Amino acid sequence: MDHTVFTGNPLDRVSAKRPDSAWIAARLADPNARVLAVWNGRPFVETPGDEGREEGARLAYITAGEARRIAGDREDGLFFLGLDGETPVFGMEIGGASDPGEGAFERRTGRFAELRGVALALPPSEAAVVATAKSLLDWHRRHGFCSACGNASRSVDSGWRRVCPACETEHFPRVDPVVIMLAVANDKCLLGRNAGWPEGRMSALAGFMEPGETIEEACARELKEESGLVVRSVAYHSSQPWPFPSSLMIGLIAEVEDGQAVPDGVEILELRWFARDEARDVLAGRHPEVATPGGLGIARTLFASWCAG
Amino acid sequence: MDHTVFTGNPLDRVSAKRPDSAWIAARLADPNARVLAVWNGRPFVETPGDEGREEGARLAYITAGEARRIAGDREDGLFFLGLDGETPVFGMEIGGASDPGEGAFERRTGRFAELRGVALALPPSEAAVVATAKSLLDWHRRHGFCSACGNASRSVDSGWRRVCPACETEHFPRVDPVVIMLAVANDKCLLGRNAGWPEGRMSALAGFMEPGETIEEACARELKEESGLVVRSVAYHSSQPWPFPSSLMIGLIAEVEDGQAVPDGVEILELRWFARDEARDVLAGRHPEVATPGGLGIARTLFASWCAG
Repeated sequence: MDHTVFTGNPLDRVSAKRPDSAWIAARLADPNARVLAVWNGRPFVETPGDEGREEGARLAYITAGEARRIAGDREDGLFFLGLDGETPVFGMEIGGASDPGEGAFERRTGRFAELRGVALALPPSEAAVVATAKSLLDWHRRHGFCSACGNASRSVDSGWRRVCPACETEHFPRVDPVVIMLAVANDKCLLGRNAGWPEGRMSALAGFMEPGETIEEACARELKEESGLVVRSVAYHSSQPWPFPSSLMIGLIAEVEDGQAVPDGVEILELRWFARDEARDVLAGRHPEVATPGGLGIARTLFASWCAG
Repeated sequence: MDHTVFTGNPLDRVSAKRPDSAWIAARLADPNARVLAVWNGRPFVETPGDEGREEGARLAYITAGEARRIAGDREDGLFFLGLDGETPVFGMEIGGASDPGEGAFERRTGRFAELRGVALALPPSEAAVVATAKSLLDWHRRHGFCSACGNASRSVDSGWRRVCPACETEHFPRVDPVVIMLAVANDKCLLGRNAGWPEGRMSALAGFMEPGETIEEACARELKEESGLVVRSVAYHSSQPWPFPSSLMIGLIAEVEDGQAVPDGVEILELRWFARDEARDVLAGRHPEVATPGGLGIARTLFASWCAG
């Protein structure tokens, strides 16, 4: 697998134009404009096949006109995601506690699909657009109030900034960096089982970065905390936006000192070393006990890269 | 210059113990416990030399007893930063609009020093501890209220989490990833002058990451926006915590396609290519027109690394 899901958003964000409300309005008036509707984190998609099968899924964009009718006076809930060539693309949160259901919009069929289930079935570029929209929309949903003074804030710059009318504090969409690392030593790599995962499911270790850390220091801290292992060197591999709700996964290969890997017993329940041949069996899904890291996460990219090399 | 300022925090954060209030209280009762006092983003420091000179500066830690007397019933404002060997280290915000002044505490002399001015004069490990404390304390100052519902939230886990008593939303310290990249092509590197900088001051380009981007995509977007240049490949170099207020600087070397570098005229007013010899003159401070990127930022590390070879 060469492609990491949620990477490769093809849109030109044209970020300098976001504060230009006349320019944004003209893009929304473009008859070709497309709106990605999201309900409760779920994008509106069409699937050609049977109910419940995701194969061949595509985003079922709605028109800007329809979006405006739904948005009503909440037009500031239509956020500019960027240009796909010349075509403006917007994102929009569909409110409400219950799923609007199949064929929710006039234009055509479609349904709100859980992103973890549908992401691999979507064309990669569409999955990446959804990741951007979902993170941005989630941020608004969780940031309606100013953290500095508690007053209701309002969305500006077509959804890319919030401002508090009371204390004038500006707020920007949150991106939370996470280090995710495949620990290696003596031509073996380490996988761990998170608390809450079923027996036999294992993946790379990971954790949120904290203030005052470099990427390498965060990697060393997380490995020490979760496995007791001491890092010798850290190599950056690649990264991935992770829209649950808004992380940046920073993928690393960490060479560690020889030693006993001891799970912390809280976040990590089990740790296991894999020689390359055995790791390849895990990757190919033919290991008798251990299931491969999920296909959505960058852990699989790291693991596949190490298995290959 | 081999060391990037604010990296190398030597404290063991012992993050698993933060929720254990009895353990934290025992650390605070340790007679060796040290407290880093910060007023308005400024650490309390001692300098051996004349007023206004920062050379030889050291953190002037206060005792836990003194900190508790100052904190009074705000004891939840004493945040556990970690262990320095066996010694517990805490951080504490000193409130108030005006500088408490020289010798603010009973224990000894000292003053609240602007971090940008004093950071290079402090021992590197102390500068890194200040970076952690300042980012964490700033976060509390700007996040007293729940962004989801507007109610006052409260600090838990010795300052590493806030919880809303009304809606139970959890909030974690913010770390904002920034891509900072030295663009190179044809054995030349690109420096730019930010709006607001004096004529002749130039540095690497940079910008905040957005939801839905990889590090490489953010680098390409920022370079396109600020210079019009197209990225061919991106190599990760190193990273730096940047406590103004709480960024993670992700340092990159970006190979770009040949082409005219055109400043956006808003964030970047001037761009200029430097051949290696000329770049070395800039680095050494002997260029007639262009001043070196500031010594605090990772831009200097990137630039020095490229100059070296």
